Amino acid sequence: MLKLYSCKGTIGLACHIGLEEAGAEYEVEWVDFTQNAQRQPDYLAVNPKSRVPALVTDRGVITEAPAILSYIAQTHPAAKLAPLGDAFAMAQVQSFNTYLCGTVHVAAAHRYRGYRWADDPEALKDMARKAPLVVADCFALIEAHMVEGPWVMGEAYSICDPYLYTVTTWLERDGIDPTPYPKVMAHFERMQARPAVGKVLAQVAG
Amino acid sequence: MLKLYSCKGTIGLACHIGLEEAGAEYEVEWVDFTQNAQRQPDYLAVNPKSRVPALVTDRGVITEAPAILSYIAQTHPAAKLAPLGDAFAMAQVQSFNTYLCGTVHVAAAHRYRGYRWADDPEALKDMARKAPLVVADCFALIEAHMVEGPWVMGEAYSICDPYLYTVTTWLERDGIDPTPYPKVMAHFERMQARPAVGKVLAQVAG
Repeated sequence: MLKLYSCKGTIGLACHIGLEEAGAEYEVEWVDFTQNAQRQPDYLAVNPKSRVPALVTDRGVITEAPAILSYIAQTHPAAKLAPLGDAFAMAQVQSFNTYLCGTVHVAAAHRYRGYRWADDPEALKDMARKAPLVVADCFALIEAHMVEGPWVMGEAYSICDPYLYTVTTWLERDGIDPTPYPKVMAHFERMQARPAVGKVLAQVAG
Repeated sequence: MLKLYSCKGTIGLACHIGLEEAGAEYEVEWVDFTQNAQRQPDYLAVNPKSRVPALVTDRGVITEAPAILSYIAQTHPAAKLAPLGDAFAMAQVQSFNTYLCGTVHVAAAHRYRGYRWADDPEALKDMARKAPLVVADCFALIEAHMVEGPWVMGEAYSICDPYLYTVTTWLERDGIDPTPYPKVMAHFERMQARPAVGKVLAQVAG
């Protein structure tokens, strides 16, 4: 059985939804960031990067959300979570998730985790101030160029959708007005209506 | 023919090496960051993110280095640049490249491109000061956990190798002492000795 290490409020949610959509057999172990559990030796043995998510498989651990989501799609082909076998379409899926990972998520992290990149308290304040503006610019680009609709990649639901959904859940928390992103917000509503998402949100709340 | 948009000194080099290793038919178009070419309308039509690299294929444009490298590996299977068909091994490849993209590259970018995440000149200074320390921590983790040797994934050369090589070329520029990373530096020397790398470096210099 697959085991997902995750933490509430993090990008781990995207992988959690991915597992549920895949119909995978899995369990979730919560890593309590409020207790600094991600920096304890037992978790570092799972993921020395001290981040979530991490997926434990029978062959070893996979880290980084885009890689975990691709693995889920590849190993559960019946769920059709990615255009397997079409190198160009797969590259578009990977490109979208990489953008969320390496640009959007990073931009959002400057609000709460600026200490990763600066020490001066004034610098952290300036990064926290600017972060929502940078994230807003990213969402403008996503709205204009990246969401085909009804799903990110068009007619076919894919591993891009739980990723976008999870990053979109952060907008309200970060005080970002969603009005300029009607396609993204319609996507968000569509995601909320999916049984797998409801099931995962109940697990997270429980 | 594939066309790679790249810029000297950027992660575009990893994709350029990937194309050469694959034996692909390709040409390179240089995007001159000193002339702000990445923000001009003709380039924004290629990549609205105004970043490099971008790979133009007969089906459309692919952006984000990890996605471009995976596409090159998938479409040139004879070059054996990735463990195609092995979902777990492919996930390890993607995980490694995602770490370089979303964590190491981002850390390095705080030295020169802190304006992406802050405006206060003192904040930019503090980010530039800390960036080499953060990159050094990343390389310590890579050295300890991620380079099997002789190549990143072990005996088989893969699309992880030009990515690591490119990020390693930035160490000297950023004043980071390479002594604590003997495995990474041996990997760097091994890469320098590859004919494909020599050929690409000559193209870049030319």
